[in-house]
Amino acid sequence: MPRYKITIEYDGTPFAGWQRQDNAPSVQASLERAAERLDGAPVLVYGAGRTDSGVHALGQVAHLDLVKDLAAGKVRDALNYHLKPDPVAVLEAERVDDEFHARFSATSRHYLYRMIDRRPPLTLDRGQVWRVPRRLDAEAMHHAAQALLGQHDFTTFRDAQCQAESPVKTLDAVQVSRYGEEVQLTCSARSFLHRQVRSMVGSLVEVGTGKWSAKDFKAALDAADRSRCGPVAPPDGLYLVAVDYPPDA
Amino acid sequence: MPRYKITIEYDGTPFAGWQRQDNAPSVQASLERAAERLDGAPVLVYGAGRTDSGVHALGQVAHLDLVKDLAAGKVRDALNYHLKPDPVAVLEAERVDDEFHARFSATSRHYLYRMIDRRPPLTLDRGQVWRVPRRLDAEAMHHAAQALLGQHDFTTFRDAQCQAESPVKTLDAVQVSRYGEEVQLTCSARSFLHRQVRSMVGSLVEVGTGKWSAKDFKAALDAADRSRCGPVAPPDGLYLVAVDYPPDA
Repeated sequence: MPRYKITIEYDGTPFAGWQRQDNAPSVQASLERAAERLDGAPVLVYGAGRTDSGVHALGQVAHLDLVKDLAAGKVRDALNYHLKPDPVAVLEAERVDDEFHARFSATSRHYLYRMIDRRPPLTLDRGQVWRVPRRLDAEAMHHAAQALLGQHDFTTFRDAQCQAESPVKTLDAVQVSRYGEEVQLTCSARSFLHRQVRSMVGSLVEVGTGKWSAKDFKAALDAADRSRCGPVAPPDGLYLVAVDYPPDA
Repeated sequence: MPRYKITIEYDGTPFAGWQRQDNAPSVQASLERAAERLDGAPVLVYGAGRTDSGVHALGQVAHLDLVKDLAAGKVRDALNYHLKPDPVAVLEAERVDDEFHARFSATSRHYLYRMIDRRPPLTLDRGQVWRVPRRLDAEAMHHAAQALLGQHDFTTFRDAQCQAESPVKTLDAVQVSRYGEEVQLTCSARSFLHRQVRSMVGSLVEVGTGKWSAKDFKAALDAADRSRCGPVAPPDGLYLVAVDYPPDA
């Protein structure tokens, strides 16, 4: 059976998350339903990252095996046809080796978190940005965030339900920048703990509003204590932007 | 009665347009309902531009008179409170002279039209961008659009239902640029005819896909003949960005 790698964009708002669930809509189930309509038989879709309820993707990656041997462009267009009206789009499809696994072959994951600091409510960006009604000091957030770089025990920024074996992860890049009324955090790592980005962002907002210093932020990280985490940021502003694979994958 | 100028952002998707109507939701009615809840008496809200159904605003301007004499910041916050859950937000409010009129004092209006040229359907931007499933040559569109600058009889780009006395208008600026997968048109004029921007954009897309040359586009304008207009672009991509007033207004 030919294996296809697909790159996916979705609006996470109407979904209970990436992962298939019994009584709630999921992105995975939406894709598996579309693939079954295309292939005429049940299909499993494996994603690189299990995004939470309300979290979006600009470049989630998944793989699936089909019985039919179709051109990659045809798979993309047919999946998009059968995905309607769900807010999920296959941006690209390509044939890959049987060894390719969207989750286990991934070498890096890139996330974006969008914030707007203003008093008026959101209209066009509703559900797609976190509105923070106080002024954020993006430079102070960027400075404090640098403490996250490298290998750490990220217990402070790990959800209590996280099932990863170890809380030790390596953050390869993190940047906070302002673009007009929007503040964006981008970060990259081989893998993340459950709710790690939202936990880090929520704590950095404490720095941005002046409640915490950069020293307080570093102390919270170093404590490796979940009770030291700031309020976890809502899913609205979080986007899985891209997933990297080895050149030969 | 104190007069307030308000700057408004809205998602036009759920509205039948700016203008109050008997049996359909409108942005104007939404604002008038919020203002009545604030002021305790019926309030009329006068907008600078009557955007069509599905058209958005990043900076629509309106004025209203209240019985209550309130600080401008308080009017902004109270209107936003009473506007919930409608996707309409008052970004700014300020006290103005009784001579200020949002529509008649305006000296310039600025519009943005957003297009994405790709085959996959939209997800996060659904209803907020026009998806064109063929490659657009933004440079060719920009070049052709320059024919619109200055004073012209815009009958070709005017809706048959347009109630303006004259089809002669002056376009002060027009630019088409690509930003990644997005093509944006911006244009400015003292005032526009009904559906003028969407008519111009629809015809420029004929240039962008190679169906029309710049010469064809200019010939369509010069013909001053509505039947020479290309397919009118959908409302999804159109935004009223800003309205200018004299410095002393």
